[in-house]
Amino acid sequence: MSLKHVGKQSVQLTAPPSFIGYASAVGRKEGEGPLGSAFDYVSDDMLFGQKTWEKGESEMVRRALELALGKANKQPEDIEYLFGGDLLNQCIGTTFGIRSFGIPFFGVYGACSTMAESLSLAAMMIDGGFADTAAAVTSSHFCSSERQYRFPVEYGGQRTPTAQWTVTGSGAAILAHEGPGPFITRITAGKIIDAGIKDANNMGAAMAPAAYDTLRTHFSDLALNPSDYDLIITGDLGQVGSEILLDFFLRDGVNLAPNYNDCGLMIFSRETQDVHSGGSGCGCSASVLNGYILDGMRSGRWNNVLFAATGALLSPTSTQQKESIPSICCAVAISNTK
Amino acid sequence: MSLKHVGKQSVQLTAPPSFIGYASAVGRKEGEGPLGSAFDYVSDDMLFGQKTWEKGESEMVRRALELALGKANKQPEDIEYLFGGDLLNQCIGTTFGIRSFGIPFFGVYGACSTMAESLSLAAMMIDGGFADTAAAVTSSHFCSSERQYRFPVEYGGQRTPTAQWTVTGSGAAILAHEGPGPFITRITAGKIIDAGIKDANNMGAAMAPAAYDTLRTHFSDLALNPSDYDLIITGDLGQVGSEILLDFFLRDGVNLAPNYNDCGLMIFSRETQDVHSGGSGCGCSASVLNGYILDGMRSGRWNNVLFAATGALLSPTSTQQKESIPSICCAVAISNTK
Repeated sequence: MSLKHVGKQSVQLTAPPSFIGYASAVGRKEGEGPLGSAFDYVSDDMLFGQKTWEKGESEMVRRALELALGKANKQPEDIEYLFGGDLLNQCIGTTFGIRSFGIPFFGVYGACSTMAESLSLAAMMIDGGFADTAAAVTSSHFCSSERQYRFPVEYGGQRTPTAQWTVTGSGAAILAHEGPGPFITRITAGKIIDAGIKDANNMGAAMAPAAYDTLRTHFSDLALNPSDYDLIITGDLGQVGSEILLDFFLRDGVNLAPNYNDCGLMIFSRETQDVHSGGSGCGCSASVLNGYILDGMRSGRWNNVLFAATGALLSPTSTQQKESIPSICCAVAISNTK
Repeated sequence: MSLKHVGKQSVQLTAPPSFIGYASAVGRKEGEGPLGSAFDYVSDDMLFGQKTWEKGESEMVRRALELALGKANKQPEDIEYLFGGDLLNQCIGTTFGIRSFGIPFFGVYGACSTMAESLSLAAMMIDGGFADTAAAVTSSHFCSSERQYRFPVEYGGQRTPTAQWTVTGSGAAILAHEGPGPFITRITAGKIIDAGIKDANNMGAAMAPAAYDTLRTHFSDLALNPSDYDLIITGDLGQVGSEILLDFFLRDGVNLAPNYNDCGLMIFSRETQDVHSGGSGCGCSASVLNGYILDGMRSGRWNNVLFAATGALLSPTSTQQKESIPSICCAVAISNTK
């Protein structure tokens, strides 16, 4: 077993890379939510000035990456590798969004866990000596997702109480070997966990067992406790999934609640924004991390954050074929000290 | 710039990981082709014993990975990380195929370049000290691809002369820090290249500029010549794309032809198998590499192979929206000596 690999599926980085720039671009509803002031760019226009929602999503990705590069004071040619993906079929939100930058690209797909997966790979590329600077980007868009996964928005379909609202948002991060922090210090990759949930309108319940598996493994692999983090944050379990996750830990005698939150619960007001169980989508955890969370770390509000983004690896085809929902969770520890 | 990073977008591995097991599973048509005897498993049944083509593709993936593990004499729990993806929406061929193994998973999407991308990341995980053993798997299936990208096969749509035939195949590779070889020695990640081609029935032409860009960069980054390889093999440019690639190099005064071939031209007989411009799909280069090519390296037929898989990053939605086809090519150098 190699030195950096710890326990079953975790990694302890030896030269933790630093965030040197990060940015988020979101839609109007996200801008009107509780975290509105933390986003770098809020578009009043769901099309982001384009002719289709898919092209709009790509424009949002382009803008988030451009903003992050600007904040890192880097040009595209300074970035050795870019990791990214999104929810659209064949990840076209990302590929068309980054097309003009000319950065060597590794496409990834982890559904709504994509930001954690991209950050993990970018961080390991730097820690492993393959790059000095690498980037991660992902996105989701309410309208492009609805028509791909569920119904065209014009249809006005009813949503179940367990359903979540796909965030229109993109987050981008630039990591480097040297920088002011915060730093990525530890990574726990996820296994696919399928608890047999078949309701595609209840992805929180499908993903909660994956979050539980990865978090529990993270603590055990690295001999850590939840109290070693100021904040443990899941990607987008929403109200239903978050309650299940807390319940799983309670059964182990662990009360995660005091320092736990979920990006899907933070980004919208469930009281006033009619989002049912909360927000979801790759862009949910990506925009919350690359804004509110990293801002909060730089201001000293939190010093050690465990970012555990979750993904439901289903497709409309698998649902039509009566398959259950395989899920995954990738955890990235972010610290103000190396 | 870090030590392992060479030139613009290449990596020279310092402790080249070894293939310790590899396998392929394919459909009947592939089994009847010129490379038929090199595949580990040929199914007479396009459904691979399942009820749908998508489930059949997943079963093919499961079988390829199981065979590769067996040939490597490894159990799933010995594999620290698995990289994989496929052409199906949300990569369900892979996620449902590997679900039962319980291996920590990083999903990737590089269209038909996915095997090269997965191998690159798996190799860097090992070289970087994050894993001792890692795996790569990908697949494509003619029937699941046709109905997703073009027409249901029952419709019997006419195909254009430039069209390629999606390979029904899966390839899996197990890499380790120690092993008998062949070894992965160098990697050149691809940039997205979009030459403005909009014809989704001519993906060879769309991908050829990406293959040219990555290969040219590989040679220049690493101060190599095409003659440093016994075999330079692209993923699935087919007849049209291969001719364009050779022409691009001829304009630079470089004759690639003597040691060049394309997996899409090798896997089928264009004379007898009615595949128009050749084979394509993630499973094309994956099954040709994880069988015929690696067998040929172990037998000493080739000692230095440059495996340059190509991907067209389009979707049916992007085509409907009149977008051009962004393409990418990832190159992996495989050698019998470290």
